[in-house]
Amino acid sequence: MQGNEIMQEEKVFKDPVHRYIHVRDQLIWDLIGTKEFQRLRRIRQLGTTFLTFHGAEHTRFNHSLGVYEIMRRMVNVFEGRQHWNDENRLLCLTAALLHDIGHGPFSHSFEKVFDTDHEEWTRAIIMGDTEVHAVLKRMGDQFPKEVSEVIEKTHPNKLVVSMISSQIDADRMDYLQRDAFYTGVSYGHFDMERILRVMRPTEDQVVIKQTGMHAVEDYIMSRYQMYWQVYFHPVTRSAEVILNKILRRAKVLYLEGYQFTQPPHHFTPFFNNNMNTQDYLKLDESIIYYYFQVWEDEQDVILADLCRRFLHRDLFQYVEFDQNFILNEWSDLQERFRRIGLDPDYYLVIDFSSDLPYDFYRPGEEEERLPIHLLNRNGRLRELSRESDVVEAISGKKRTDHKLYYPKDVLDAPGFSEEKRAIIKILHG
Amino acid sequence: MQGNEIMQEEKVFKDPVHRYIHVRDQLIWDLIGTKEFQRLRRIRQLGTTFLTFHGAEHTRFNHSLGVYEIMRRMVNVFEGRQHWNDENRLLCLTAALLHDIGHGPFSHSFEKVFDTDHEEWTRAIIMGDTEVHAVLKRMGDQFPKEVSEVIEKTHPNKLVVSMISSQIDADRMDYLQRDAFYTGVSYGHFDMERILRVMRPTEDQVVIKQTGMHAVEDYIMSRYQMYWQVYFHPVTRSAEVILNKILRRAKVLYLEGYQFTQPPHHFTPFFNNNMNTQDYLKLDESIIYYYFQVWEDEQDVILADLCRRFLHRDLFQYVEFDQNFILNEWSDLQERFRRIGLDPDYYLVIDFSSDLPYDFYRPGEEEERLPIHLLNRNGRLRELSRESDVVEAISGKKRTDHKLYYPKDVLDAPGFSEEKRAIIKILHG
Amino acid sequence: MQGNEIMQEEKVFKDPVHRYIHVRDQLIWDLIGTKEFQRLRRIRQLGTTFLTFHGAEHTRFNHSLGVYEIMRRMVNVFEGRQHWNDENRLLCLTAALLHDIGHGPFSHSFEKVFDTDHEEWTRAIIMGDTEVHAVLKRMGDQFPKEVSEVIEKTHPNKLVVSMISSQIDADRMDYLQRDAFYTGVSYGHFDMERILRVMRPTEDQVVIKQTGMHAVEDYIMSRYQMYWQVYFHPVTRSAEVILNKILRRAKVLYLEGYQFTQPPHHFTPFFNNNMNTQDYLKLDESIIYYYFQVWEDEQDVILADLCRRFLHRDLFQYVEFDQNFILNEWSDLQERFRRIGLDPDYYLVIDFSSDLPYDFYRPGEEEERLPIHLLNRNGRLRELSRESDVVEAISGKKRTDHKLYYPKDVLDAPGFSEEKRAIIKILHG
Amino acid sequence: MQGNEIMQEEKVFKDPVHRYIHVRDQLIWDLIGTKEFQRLRRIRQLGTTFLTFHGAEHTRFNHSLGVYEIMRRMVNVFEGRQHWNDENRLLCLTAALLHDIGHGPFSHSFEKVFDTDHEEWTRAIIMGDTEVHAVLKRMGDQFPKEVSEVIEKTHPNKLVVSMISSQIDADRMDYLQRDAFYTGVSYGHFDMERILRVMRPTEDQVVIKQTGMHAVEDYIMSRYQMYWQVYFHPVTRSAEVILNKILRRAKVLYLEGYQFTQPPHHFTPFFNNNMNTQDYLKLDESIIYYYFQVWEDEQDVILADLCRRFLHRDLFQYVEFDQNFILNEWSDLQERFRRIGLDPDYYLVIDFSSDLPYDFYRPGEEEERLPIHLLNRNGRLRELSRESDVVEAISGKKRTDHKLYYPKDVLDAPGFSEEKRAIIKILHG
Repeated sequence: MQGNEIMQEEKVFKDPVHRYIHVRDQLIWDLIGTKEFQRLRRIRQLGTTFLTFHGAEHTRFNHSLGVYEIMRRMVNVFEGRQHWNDENRLLCLTAALLHDIGHGPFSHSFEKVFDTDHEEWTRAIIMGDTEVHAVLKRMGDQFPKEVSEVIEKTHPNKLVVSMISSQIDADRMDYLQRDAFYTGVSYGHFDMERILRVMRPTEDQVVIKQTGMHAVEDYIMSRYQMYWQVYFHPVTRSAEVILNKILRRAKVLYLEGYQFTQPPHHFTPFFNNNMNTQDYLKLDESIIYYYFQVWEDEQDVILADLCRRFLHRDLFQYVEFDQNFILNEWSDLQERFRRIGLDPDYYLVIDFSSDLPYDFYRPGEEEERLPIHLLNRNGRLRELSRESDVVEAISGKKRTDHKLYYPKDVLDAPGFSEEKRAIIKILHG
Repeated sequence: MQGNEIMQEEKVFKDPVHRYIHVRDQLIWDLIGTKEFQRLRRIRQLGTTFLTFHGAEHTRFNHSLGVYEIMRRMVNVFEGRQHWNDENRLLCLTAALLHDIGHGPFSHSFEKVFDTDHEEWTRAIIMGDTEVHAVLKRMGDQFPKEVSEVIEKTHPNKLVVSMISSQIDADRMDYLQRDAFYTGVSYGHFDMERILRVMRPTEDQVVIKQTGMHAVEDYIMSRYQMYWQVYFHPVTRSAEVILNKILRRAKVLYLEGYQFTQPPHHFTPFFNNNMNTQDYLKLDESIIYYYFQVWEDEQDVILADLCRRFLHRDLFQYVEFDQNFILNEWSDLQERFRRIGLDPDYYLVIDFSSDLPYDFYRPGEEEERLPIHLLNRNGRLRELSRESDVVEAISGKKRTDHKLYYPKDVLDAPGFSEEKRAIIKILHG
Repeated sequence: MQGNEIMQEEKVFKDPVHRYIHVRDQLIWDLIGTKEFQRLRRIRQLGTTFLTFHGAEHTRFNHSLGVYEIMRRMVNVFEGRQHWNDENRLLCLTAALLHDIGHGPFSHSFEKVFDTDHEEWTRAIIMGDTEVHAVLKRMGDQFPKEVSEVIEKTHPNKLVVSMISSQIDADRMDYLQRDAFYTGVSYGHFDMERILRVMRPTEDQVVIKQTGMHAVEDYIMSRYQMYWQVYFHPVTRSAEVILNKILRRAKVLYLEGYQFTQPPHHFTPFFNNNMNTQDYLKLDESIIYYYFQVWEDEQDVILADLCRRFLHRDLFQYVEFDQNFILNEWSDLQERFRRIGLDPDYYLVIDFSSDLPYDFYRPGEEEERLPIHLLNRNGRLRELSRESDVVEAISGKKRTDHKLYYPKDVLDAPGFSEEKRAIIKILHG
Repeated sequence: MQGNEIMQEEKVFKDPVHRYIHVRDQLIWDLIGTKEFQRLRRIRQLGTTFLTFHGAEHTRFNHSLGVYEIMRRMVNVFEGRQHWNDENRLLCLTAALLHDIGHGPFSHSFEKVFDTDHEEWTRAIIMGDTEVHAVLKRMGDQFPKEVSEVIEKTHPNKLVVSMISSQIDADRMDYLQRDAFYTGVSYGHFDMERILRVMRPTEDQVVIKQTGMHAVEDYIMSRYQMYWQVYFHPVTRSAEVILNKILRRAKVLYLEGYQFTQPPHHFTPFFNNNMNTQDYLKLDESIIYYYFQVWEDEQDVILADLCRRFLHRDLFQYVEFDQNFILNEWSDLQERFRRIGLDPDYYLVIDFSSDLPYDFYRPGEEEERLPIHLLNRNGRLRELSRESDVVEAISGKKRTDHKLYYPKDVLDAPGFSEEKRAIIKILHG
C-alpha cells in the first residue's frame, strides 16, 4: 500500500502480557517512534491506582502496544473471511495503536477540572501539526481523518469501529488482562485465544460464534470483577479526590491573582482556558508531579497540604454514604468542618461510581456500546443476554456506590475535641 | 519489642510477583508510610530499561516491598533453628525494606556525574533528620545505626548481613524474579520456595543444604541470563549514555556561567557540589523529566538535542568495539566527528559492561560478595563451584563487552557526505 | 498426640497445582503408604474425561494429596482462633486425605450398574480389616470411626464436617483448580490464598469474612464454568454412556449363563451381588481395561462392539433432546433401531445432566450442602446470595440438559438406507 | 495433496502445555483416530516417574499431540523460506505425530528383558497391517515408508529428519516442557516461541539465528536440569529396577516350566521370543498392571514380593556406589544376601545413569545427535559450544552416577541380626 512498506525484518517487542508484539509495517514502526506516542510512556495507564496496587505502574504506551497486537491477531483471524476487506487492515492497526493518543496525565480529574475531553485531543493530535499526522499522511490525505473517525466511532465502516469500540473489543481485551497482570489480582483472566478464534466479521459488527459463549461469559465476569475490585477501589478514588481538589485549588488561586512562588507556566493556558495542542502535549505526569512537589512548599495551606497528601500517600478516609443523609445533615456537617478549620469544599467530598458490566441496549446514552451478538449454526444472531443466564442476571443492572471522603487523621488529632466527636458521630452513626 | 507493636489485623499488599506481601509489625507499616519511602514510587527500578523492555516500568517502591517479603519468609524458615536469634527479626525486616532508600533517579549515571554514592545517601537518610529516622528511633537509640550497618555490610552480625548482601540474598532473589516478570522475558525464574526451604543459618552466613544444589544452580543461571539479556542490553545502555551526557552538559554549562532559561534550582547544589540530604530527597524521576523537557527548548544545541533524543527515544546506535581500534583510530575519529559538527565528547561514547555470574572468592575487590556454601549431611560446608559443574564452568569468569555509541542518524543524513562515508568505514570496517 | 509423631524432617511432594505438599505427621505419611491409598494411583480423577480433554489423566491419588494440603493450610489459618480446637487437626487432615478412599474405577457408572455406593466402601475401608484401618487405630480405638463420620457428614462436630463438605470446602477447592490445570481450560482459577485468609471458624461451620465476597463470587463462577465446560461435556458423557452399557451387557450375559472365553473373576462377585471389601479393592482401572480388551474379542457382538468403541474412542454422537419427543417418537425410534440391527437398549441412550452452581437452601434434598455465609464487621452472618448479585442470579437455578446418544457411524454406513434415512429425519428434524 | 483434504472446519484440542493443538488435515485427524494411536493413551510418558512425582501421570498420547503441534508451528515459520519445500509439510507432521507409536508399556525395562526395540516396532506398525498403515497409504504407496524413514533417521532429507531428531527438535522441546508441567518442577521452561522464530531451514539441518543463542542456552540448561532432577531421579530408578526384576523373574519361571495360577497369555509370545506386531499392540500398562496384581498372589515368593513392592510402592533404598567397592566386596555381599534369604539376583541391583546435556560431536556413538549450529549475519555457521561459555562448559562431559539398590526394610526387620549388621556396615561404611 502506498505510504507503507513491509519491513525487511519483522520487529518484535517483548511484552509480559501477550509475550511478543509483532510489527511488520513501516507505518506502525514510525508511528511508535513519534514524540506524541513516546509521550505515552510518561502517562500511567491507571492514574492513581498504583497508590492502591503498587504493581500498577504501567503506562498507556504499554497498553497501546497491547491493543495494537490484539487487533493484529484479530485481523489475522478475519483474513479471507466473508465481510472482511483486507484493505482495512492498516486502518484497524493504526486506530488500535493510536486510540489513547489524546490521553493526558490523570485524564479523568484533569478533564473535569479544565473542562477538556481526551477524545477532542485525540482528533487534534491526529489531524494537527504533529509527527503522528505527518506519518499518517504518507498513506494519503484522507487517512488521518479516517483513523480519527474510527477512534471517534463516526466512521461509516461499522465493522471496523466495532473492532475497537464495542463491549468486546481490542481495547477492553487488552486492558482487562494487562491491568490484572500488573495489579496482580487473580481476576481479569479469560481465554482470549479462544475468543479471537470464534470472532466473525459481519457487515456491521464483530459477532461471536455460539460455541464461544462460555468464553465470553467468562470475559464479562472478568470485567465485572475488575471494575469493583480494581477500577473503583475506594483508596484509588481517595487519591483521585485529592488530585481533583489540588487542580481546582491551583486554578482558584490563579484566578484570584495568587502569587505562586514559581509561575505555573505549564498550567497557565488551562487556567485561562486558551490552551492549544502544543500546550497539551507538554503535559505529562512528570510535569504534574514537579508542580505538586513545588506546591508542597507554597504559602497556601490548602494547596500545600493537599499536595503533601498526594505525594506521600496520606489519603482521605471514607464512609459509606446514605442518600437521605445528604438532605438532612449536609449543611450541618459542612458548618462543623469549617469550625474545626477545614474548608469543606476541599476536605469533605462525595464520590460515587457506577458500572454496567454488560448492557444489551441503551440507545441514546452517552457511552452506549454495541451489545454482543452470538452467531448460531444457522447463521442467525442472538443477543448474548438472551442466551446466557449469567449475563442476563447482570445485564442493564447499574450498580452504584456512594462514598464520603474526609481527612480522618485531622479528626483524630488533638484540639476542638467536642466538635470533632460530633462530626465522627454524624459520619459513623 | 519496645517501639513496635503487632498490629491488630495483618495488612496485605497484592503483589504480582509474590502474590501477597504481609505486614504485621507497626514499625514496618509506619516506615512504608514515610515520605522518604513513598518517594521510591517515583524512581524506576531499572532506570532506562523501560526504553528497551516497555513492561519494565516498575519502581524501587515495588522492589523494596518484595525484598521485605522474601526476608519475612526467610526469617520464618529460620525461626527455632540453631544459630538463629529471633531478636534480629525486625532488624532483618527493616534492613530489607530500606536497603534501597538512598537510591535516586537514574542512580548509576547520576552518581558518576555528580560523584555521589547511593550508599552514603542511605546512611544519611537513615541517620539524619527524616521521617524514616524518627520511626526507627522508636525502637531504641541504637536501632537506626544498626539498620544502617546491616545495609552497609559493616554490622558485626555476619549472618544478618548475608541475608541481604550475599550471592543469594533477599535483594537478588527479588529483583531477578521481579525484573523478569515486568520485562516479560522467560529467564529469571527459579524455585525460590525450595531455596528458602533449604536455607540454613550458621554462625556467620546463610548456607544451602546440599539437596538444594540444583535449585541454586538454576538461580545462578537465571542471574547469568538476566544480566546479558536485560541488564546489559545495548539499547538500554545507549539511553544511559545519553542520560549521562545530558547531566554532564548541564553541569558544564552551569559552571561556565551559561544562562538557563529557567534556573535549574533542583540541580544547583549538585553542580556546586554542596548538596545536602534534603536536596537529594527532592530529586526523583519526575523532576529530572521536567528539566529534560524544559532543556529541550534551551539555546544550547547539544543539551537540547540530547534531551530530545532521550525523551523521544531517538537513541544512539552502536558498533562492537575492538581494543586495538582505540589506540589507532580514536583521535582520527574524534577529529572527523568534529569536522561534521558533532562534539565527540558527547556524540562518540565508549561503554563497556562486565559481569561475574558467580564468584567463589575475590578478596579485596570492591563488590566482593560471599560465595555460596552447601551444607552436606555430615554438617560440612563446601563452596558451590566445587560441587556444581555448571557453576564451576562460569565461576570467576568475567565476561566483558565493549561498545561504541554514536548518532547513526546524523551520519545517514545529507551533508558532509565524504567525511561521513569515511567515518562509517572506520566504524563498520 | 498418641499414635502420631512429628517426623524429624518434613517430607514434601512436588505438586503442580499447590507447588508443594507438606507432611510432618507420621500418621499422614503412613496412610499415604498403605496399599488402599496407593491404589488410588490407578483410578483417574475424572473417569472418561481424558477422552475429551487429553490432559486430564490425573488420578484420585493426585487429588487426595491436594485436598489434604488445602486442609493443612486451612488448619494453619485457624490455629489460635476462637471456635477452633487444635485437637481436631489430625482428624481434619486424615478425613481430607481419605475422603475419596472408597472410590473405584469409573465410580459413577459402576455404582449405577452394580448398585453400590462409594461412600459405603469408604466406611468399609476405614472400619474394616485394611492397612488404612490399622494405621488409623494407632490414634485410638475411636479414631477410625470419627474419620469415617466426618467423611459421611454425620460427625457431631459440624465445623470439621463443613471443612471438607460444604459449598466451599477443601475438596471442591482442590478439584476445581486441579481439573482446570490438567484439562488446560482457562476456567477454574480463583484466588484460593485469599479465600483461605478470609475463612473463619464458627461454632458449626466455616464462614467467610465479608471482605472476601468477591473472591468467593469468582470461585462460584469457576465452578459454574467447569461444570458446563468440562464435567458435563457431551463427549465425556458419550464415553460414560458406552462404559455403562458395557458393564450392563457383561452382567446380563453372565446372568444369562453366557460362557466368557476367559472367566471374569474380578467381576463375578459384583454380578452375583455378593462382593466384599477385598473384591472391591482389587478393582482398579487397569483391571477394567484388561477385561475390556479381552471382551473386544468375545463372541457376543454387542459386548465386543461396545468395548471396541470405548477402547479406540469410537464414541456415540448425540442430538439435543426434546421432552415431547420422547412421548411421541420413542417407541417408534426403538423399533426402527431394531430393524437396522441395533439393540436400542444399548445403542439409543438418553442422558441428562443438571447442576446447581450455588444453592442457598435446599433442605431435605439428597445432596444438600451448607450455604456459604459471610461474616460482616459486626459479627453478623448473611447468606452469600443476599449480598452478591451475581450469585443471587444463579442461585437455586437448576440447569438441565438432555441428550440422546446413538452410533451415527452405523447410520452413515451403507445398507438399510431407507430405514436409516427415516431415523436421521426423526433425530435431526 | 492426494489422500489428504483440508477439513472444512479446523479441529482443536485443548492442551495444557501449548494451549491449543490445531488440526486442519484429514490425514492427521484420521491417524489420531486409529486404534494404534489411541492405544498410546494407555502408556504413560514417563513410565515409573509418577511414583516419584505424582503429577506425572500423562501418557504418550498427550506428548505425541504436543510434538505434532510444535512441528506444525515450525513448518509455519519455515513456509516461504529458502531451503524449505512445502511438499514436505505432511511428512513432517505425520512423522512428528507417530514418532512414539512403537512405544510399549515401560519400554525401557521391557526392551532390556525381552530384547526388543521400540524403533523396530515403530516401523512394524507403520509398515504392517494396521489402521495407521491404511491411513498413511492413502497418501501414496511410498508414504508409509517415508514416514518410517524420517522417524528412523534414514530418510535422505536431512533437514526433515533434523526437525524431529536433533539436539533441539520438536520431540525434545515438547517433552521438556510437558514433563516439567506435569511434574510441577520449576525447570524445563524456556522461550519456545522465540526459538521457533529464530529457527532457519538449511539444506541439511535446522539452524538457529545467532541472535537466539541465549534462548538456546536456556533450553540446554533446562534439559540438563530435567535429566538430573526428574528423569534420573533415584526413586524412579528404584521402581524401574523392581519392574525389570519382575519381568525377568516371570520369564525365568515360565522358561523353567513354572505353573502360573492364570496363564500369562499376553506375555507368552515374549517369553518364547516369537511375538508379532499384534501381540505387541495388545500390551499396554493396564495389561501389565493386571498381571502384576494377579502375580501378587502367586506361590513364587520372589515374584509375589516384587509385584507387591511395585504396586504398593514399597521400593528399594539405595546407596551411592564406589567402583572399587565392586571388585572387593561384591561376592561377599551377594553371599551375605543369600544367607539372610534374599536372592541377590533380584534384591541387590546396580544401576547407573549418565547424560550428555549437549554434545557437539560424537561420531560413531549410539545415540549420536546433530550438534546445534548458529547462523550469524554473514550467513556463516558456528557450532553452539564455540559461541556459548555455558554450553561449552558442559559439552561432551558425560556425568554418570552409580547406585546400589536393595530392600532396606528387610535389613531393618528382626532376625539374622548379626549378618544384617554386617551388610549394613558394608553398604554404609
